[in-house]
Amino acid sequence: MSFSMSISPNVDKSPYFEATVADGVAAFAVYNHMYMPTNFGDPDGEYDRLLNGVAMWDVACERQVELAGPDAGVLAQYLTARDISGAENGQGKYVPVCDYDGFLINDPVLLKLSATQFWLSIADSDIQLWAKAIAAERNLDVRISLLQVAPLAIQGPKAADVVADLFGEWVRELRYFWFRETDLDGIPLLVVRSGWSKQGGFELFLRDPARGTELWDRVKAAGESYGIGPGAPNDVERIESGLLSLRTDVDERTDPFEAGLGKYVNLDGDDDFVGKAALRDLFSRGIKRRRAGLFLSGQKITQSPHAYPVMLDDVVVGTVSEIAYSPRLQRNIAIVLIDVDVDGEETGLLVDTGDEVRTAGLTELPFC
Amino acid sequence: MSFSMSISPNVDKSPYFEATVADGVAAFAVYNHMYMPTNFGDPDGEYDRLLNGVAMWDVACERQVELAGPDAGVLAQYLTARDISGAENGQGKYVPVCDYDGFLINDPVLLKLSATQFWLSIADSDIQLWAKAIAAERNLDVRISLLQVAPLAIQGPKAADVVADLFGEWVRELRYFWFRETDLDGIPLLVVRSGWSKQGGFELFLRDPARGTELWDRVKAAGESYGIGPGAPNDVERIESGLLSLRTDVDERTDPFEAGLGKYVNLDGDDDFVGKAALRDLFSRGIKRRRAGLFLSGQKITQSPHAYPVMLDDVVVGTVSEIAYSPRLQRNIAIVLIDVDVDGEETGLLVDTGDEVRTAGLTELPFC
Repeated sequence: MSFSMSISPNVDKSPYFEATVADGVAAFAVYNHMYMPTNFGDPDGEYDRLLNGVAMWDVACERQVELAGPDAGVLAQYLTARDISGAENGQGKYVPVCDYDGFLINDPVLLKLSATQFWLSIADSDIQLWAKAIAAERNLDVRISLLQVAPLAIQGPKAADVVADLFGEWVRELRYFWFRETDLDGIPLLVVRSGWSKQGGFELFLRDPARGTELWDRVKAAGESYGIGPGAPNDVERIESGLLSLRTDVDERTDPFEAGLGKYVNLDGDDDFVGKAALRDLFSRGIKRRRAGLFLSGQKITQSPHAYPVMLDDVVVGTVSEIAYSPRLQRNIAIVLIDVDVDGEETGLLVDTGDEVRTAGLTELPFC
Repeated sequence: MSFSMSISPNVDKSPYFEATVADGVAAFAVYNHMYMPTNFGDPDGEYDRLLNGVAMWDVACERQVELAGPDAGVLAQYLTARDISGAENGQGKYVPVCDYDGFLINDPVLLKLSATQFWLSIADSDIQLWAKAIAAERNLDVRISLLQVAPLAIQGPKAADVVADLFGEWVRELRYFWFRETDLDGIPLLVVRSGWSKQGGFELFLRDPARGTELWDRVKAAGESYGIGPGAPNDVERIESGLLSLRTDVDERTDPFEAGLGKYVNLDGDDDFVGKAALRDLFSRGIKRRRAGLFLSGQKITQSPHAYPVMLDDVVVGTVSEIAYSPRLQRNIAIVLIDVDVDGEETGLLVDTGDEVRTAGLTELPFC
């Protein structure tokens, strides 16, 4: 299913918007109230560049929520179940953000710029409102802002070559989720070792929204000899890699244990954080569902507009959140949230995708 | 500008989604993380039905945030600058919701179902997160839920005939924003006198999401003799009528006084609410900008993808948030946030819309 999308003034435009239009963007989504390119009309080429070369993505919609001020660290810790006390300046950490019932409401990367300045690189929910309400009601001395900072992702096995050509060989030594504040001939930005793929790469966090086209064109020129091309966060690769997609795999009542993020939940520390009591309770009761992979039989699945139930003996035992055809595995693969008592050896799992009732086989993530 | 939009599993589908696809929806937007039809390919017909007949719109994306429990009323009052103490069961009130700095973050209608149950019919921001954080940090005894309740709007001068044929003549006596809990042959819903137009009408708040197609088809059948047809919240009519559009006319630093909502701000009461101190301060300093209308010269403007600055003697004196060509006025009209010292008689206002530099004339809202 594909429909037209009019470009409207109530949705923000990325600083790279005009550059992506010039480069032939074919479709957009809306994420954090901003247009995000989803493809440039060449799905096979976009997948291939990500897997075997280098791709550049406008992910400005991965907005930055800044916590700044004397209590920034206190608030950052209170917002997440993960112990962030060991984070150093220049380091990022993937942090589950839960509500007071222990359910996931975001899964940002927390960047520590200094002891009094943190950025949350957020998935698609209004965490700036959440953080503002909590800070104000707790009388914390911290300012919360939705920044005009715009990530441009450079992803794929040749990403490091492109970024090293632009910034120097030091980028190759940057550890995952670490970053450095720098500039590119005066364009202010952060170089972050990050990105929503498992193919390796970087994100350039542009700090001057007026210079989006300039940065886009610089990256494009630097990547030319490596075969760089435009793309977007890739659903096929993310399913193969088992990456978590907030509103896809996580519904309004998914806890971090079910989502496979239990290792980031610190229930033993002294620090309080939102949802701690509820998470202790959820943990002690044990999870009912877990995140896994599913192979699906039948014709190639090229569209995955919504979730499907997984059936076993006419009983719903899970939910398929997204399906894709994997070129690497030459099979239909999916992410599933499934009852923990369904066995990996189980036969008889069925998924009705509308066009076809498919047999399904459970497997562990990642696929690749 | 128009691009393709793929239907993805991370965005919610309205209970009317399949019915609108069957009825030929041509374009969608995303609002409150849900697909909302924006047109059915017949802009002139859709405008004409709204102005002269009756239109039906899928506005399920106008999500309901429920506050339920002993402290629901306390929380409802704390969330808004408007005095809601006089609200009766069955009554709705338009309520500005501000942050702690006094800036607008939403402008919902608050429905009072009972002293312990309120619904906020929200514009496009995650007010459920805002309300949850505030309620928890203030230890209020209230549950906050994003409901599976889906408004279907019936708008236009013949809307009351259609709704009376479905529910009875009593609907004609319903006052604006008042509602009644009822059902349509067992389909549970609220009949609300409401809707995002100035043409009159109702919204049916469907309480069983499994019955969306059934309700859609019932309304369609009841409206057939009145010439009902599908449509969507209409940008042309909303500009003519001067309706506020949250993310269009209101940026991250717009206060309710600038937005023309000062009459809903109660600074004199004893009740505390979020932003009260900041709003007192903003009020005492006086507004710098105000919301008004603008006529624009030149060729018909049929697309309005983003905001434009308003210039006077090479100085920016305002921001045009959205432009349309008004069939009723046969002129280009726009909503503007403009410096208060720009006079209505001012000549020399210029707006560069990319294709043309246009002369502009200030006027008051509404246009029609």
